Amino acid sequence: MASTATFLAKTPIRTTPFPKTLKSDPSPGSRLSFSLVAGARRPARAIRSCRIACALIEPDGGQLVDLVVPAGPAREGRRREAAALPKVRLSRVDLEWVHVLSEGWASPLRGFMRESEFLQALHFNSLRLPDGSVVNMSIPIVLAIDDTQKKAIGNQRKVALVDANNKLVAILSDIEIYKHNKEERIARTWGTTAKGLPYVKEAIQNAGNWLIGGDLEVIEPIKYNDGLDQYRLSPVELREEFLRRNADAVFAFQLRNPVHNGHALLMTDTRRRLLEMGYRNPILLLHPLGGFTKADDVPLSWRMKQHEKVLEEGVLDPETTVVAIFPSPMHYAGPTEVQWHAKSRINAGANFYIVGRDPAGMKHPKEDRDLYDADHGKKVLSMAPGLEKLNILPFKVAAYDVKKQKMDFFDPSRPQDFLFISGTKMRDLAQNRKDPPDGFMCPGGWKVLVEYYETLLETVTNGSVTHFPGVQKQGSSKQR
Amino acid sequence: MASTATFLAKTPIRTTPFPKTLKSDPSPGSRLSFSLVAGARRPARAIRSCRIACALIEPDGGQLVDLVVPAGPAREGRRREAAALPKVRLSRVDLEWVHVLSEGWASPLRGFMRESEFLQALHFNSLRLPDGSVVNMSIPIVLAIDDTQKKAIGNQRKVALVDANNKLVAILSDIEIYKHNKEERIARTWGTTAKGLPYVKEAIQNAGNWLIGGDLEVIEPIKYNDGLDQYRLSPVELREEFLRRNADAVFAFQLRNPVHNGHALLMTDTRRRLLEMGYRNPILLLHPLGGFTKADDVPLSWRMKQHEKVLEEGVLDPETTVVAIFPSPMHYAGPTEVQWHAKSRINAGANFYIVGRDPAGMKHPKEDRDLYDADHGKKVLSMAPGLEKLNILPFKVAAYDVKKQKMDFFDPSRPQDFLFISGTKMRDLAQNRKDPPDGFMCPGGWKVLVEYYETLLETVTNGSVTHFPGVQKQGSSKQR
Repeated sequence: MASTATFLAKTPIRTTPFPKTLKSDPSPGSRLSFSLVAGARRPARAIRSCRIACALIEPDGGQLVDLVVPAGPAREGRRREAAALPKVRLSRVDLEWVHVLSEGWASPLRGFMRESEFLQALHFNSLRLPDGSVVNMSIPIVLAIDDTQKKAIGNQRKVALVDANNKLVAILSDIEIYKHNKEERIARTWGTTAKGLPYVKEAIQNAGNWLIGGDLEVIEPIKYNDGLDQYRLSPVELREEFLRRNADAVFAFQLRNPVHNGHALLMTDTRRRLLEMGYRNPILLLHPLGGFTKADDVPLSWRMKQHEKVLEEGVLDPETTVVAIFPSPMHYAGPTEVQWHAKSRINAGANFYIVGRDPAGMKHPKEDRDLYDADHGKKVLSMAPGLEKLNILPFKVAAYDVKKQKMDFFDPSRPQDFLFISGTKMRDLAQNRKDPPDGFMCPGGWKVLVEYYETLLETVTNGSVTHFPGVQKQGSSKQR
Repeated sequence: MASTATFLAKTPIRTTPFPKTLKSDPSPGSRLSFSLVAGARRPARAIRSCRIACALIEPDGGQLVDLVVPAGPAREGRRREAAALPKVRLSRVDLEWVHVLSEGWASPLRGFMRESEFLQALHFNSLRLPDGSVVNMSIPIVLAIDDTQKKAIGNQRKVALVDANNKLVAILSDIEIYKHNKEERIARTWGTTAKGLPYVKEAIQNAGNWLIGGDLEVIEPIKYNDGLDQYRLSPVELREEFLRRNADAVFAFQLRNPVHNGHALLMTDTRRRLLEMGYRNPILLLHPLGGFTKADDVPLSWRMKQHEKVLEEGVLDPETTVVAIFPSPMHYAGPTEVQWHAKSRINAGANFYIVGRDPAGMKHPKEDRDLYDADHGKKVLSMAPGLEKLNILPFKVAAYDVKKQKMDFFDPSRPQDFLFISGTKMRDLAQNRKDPPDGFMCPGGWKVLVEYYETLLETVTNGSVTHFPGVQKQGSSKQR
């Protein structure tokens, strides 16, 4: 996937939407301090008086967490120390969570959850801090170990976390080991225990019966070496980019699907509304999720190619758009997960969050219905503890207007003129090399999708059943 | 069950622990205003300076809700109005919730939950009020209707709630009808969807697929006519009783089981500790749950007889104990439900809450283990949003000390001297007319239990299987 990076560099756009900021060592010395909350549910009048110099929204807990050990003697010291510690091997998803934690997306969380944090996440979707304030935290960020590992750890207070190749990744200190009640965790997180939830199959079902929490020190920044690392900007780097661009509002758009013109319309319209509210330079954070996704989602590398086309062809304005990868794995936990998607973007500097229909939703794994009510995501988000400072922008419904021959906001006075093109429909069209209606997606973006589905079709075995093994075969840890 | 009331009146105790306050019409005019929070997690020094005249803890939302329509023209007007409204028939459990809501146990909730309240209860175990403050609310208090009822209601804004005999109970106004996703409700409330949860079987499984929320006006105070109504004191009446007794601290003990001497020791010890903290007149609210319980729990009427013996025989001091019935049905939802048990007691004036091992817990309905971790209840309670003002008193473990031949706090230095007598063990003993060890329970209390199990044994059909139909046969709606 080095091709994406090369391709982007060649793109003849005015300002690359993929910030040129190179990932630097995120040592504490380079951290900014964020002391002002900008635009948090203020009345429009107050917002109008906000000057461009407004600071970005304050991260949860007041300061971004940075868990990467500074290069040099400290790092070498940790390596020596780790050699003598019991080892816990991380799965791919575990490693994604180490990445998430290390860069402060879950600030003020400083490591895998101990039981008190786990229980608060499960029951209250939030954490109470020592000063009595509350931050949102809806998804348990936990590390499972099995009986053998627990026994090997014994009474030791620290463990070394290693990757699949036994390479040292991090040290977990002041550890607490507690029961992993999978049924309860699943029920409270997903609101169902039906078999077939993608994250459960990937990361919980076969995981150990214990959870180990503690303070995390990550030896060096997490890299995937898949040609996309330069787009994995940390919250600190995103904040630097927003400040560099003189953003006085940042609106985040979480996605795990290709961008069609309905999405683009929504993002463009959001910027227009923010300008009307008195902001002078609202910046869009187009923020595709980069961690674990289910097998039938379009893989990250193809999505990144598609997003690039959307900017290259001017559907979104590169001047006011930052595209970066959000390193979290996907839970598909609907109203519970959308809070995590929003909270982590506060830490990245966003003070506006666009929420759509059925965010982080999917079909029920066993019943013929959506798992979540399509409206619950935005309702829960608007009421969630710890997200009061975030402005929630509900999605207007966009659909294909057959009269105007373009994507437009749905007009309930003439429903017959609108065509809803679902993800499934889009996939069917691309797989069968049929074109979508004009104006549904920019041609270059559509071509990327067709190419992707062609790589899948090459693996069809007998012409009647479409398998998706190609997704797994592409070799990158980010390809699902 | 009129016998219980008669019996109590005859009991020759110094001060009846069952307050003599007769239930009066709880019209708004009789409401007290509670403006001070007493003793909420204050340091001991601050507590010592608290004078006896301290007000009781403030109810959630600042004022106790009272939903009973005042007798007279207003009440008659509602009756006339209701005649023309669509009718929704209440189940026994629904009626218990109407009772709970009507007296303000769930303050500031003013009726069955609308969707925004339902979602907040499910996801956050709390409700955010218009002023931004947060109150605890962990259990959905909802009313289910089926498709036919929904159709009959149509676009009307009010419905009449009637009992099994079609007698008018209440009017629900400004209604909102929304989907009853049973699977999600069960998963998020119980942390499992395993078949066999008692409340689910009783009140959810066969309920309708819609929920109807709205503002409740209850035509007249809810009565059960089972001889126990006089012990169903409302939060207002309890507060009046605590003030009458000059309580400067109220500590609540929720229970649904017979009181043994270990419980009594704990309650006595709690009072001793509160006196040491500087309180001068701590009052115990011994508060058995009176609503729906599972079939193998001891029925309310027998528990009330047993509690009375405990006071009559001086195991608890009637001078400093108030016994009353808490009208809520039981969920058996462990850490989620214990919050409801605590929150409702704030509304009744308690500023201390005793929490035991595995509160509101039970065996997993399908697996050979407890459904909840025994420590999660007290942990969740200590962190729960909206309960910060309540002092949580964790249970010390009491067991039978075979050396001292009495119930005492477990001493980990000599575990071999302690005998743990479980509910199952206690039931086996009583059923087989065997005596428990001396000092386990006061003799009169034990005799009540033996009598209860004798009534059950009378229904054993073939000597090898014990059935519990007698529980249902006793005719009272409170007998399960």
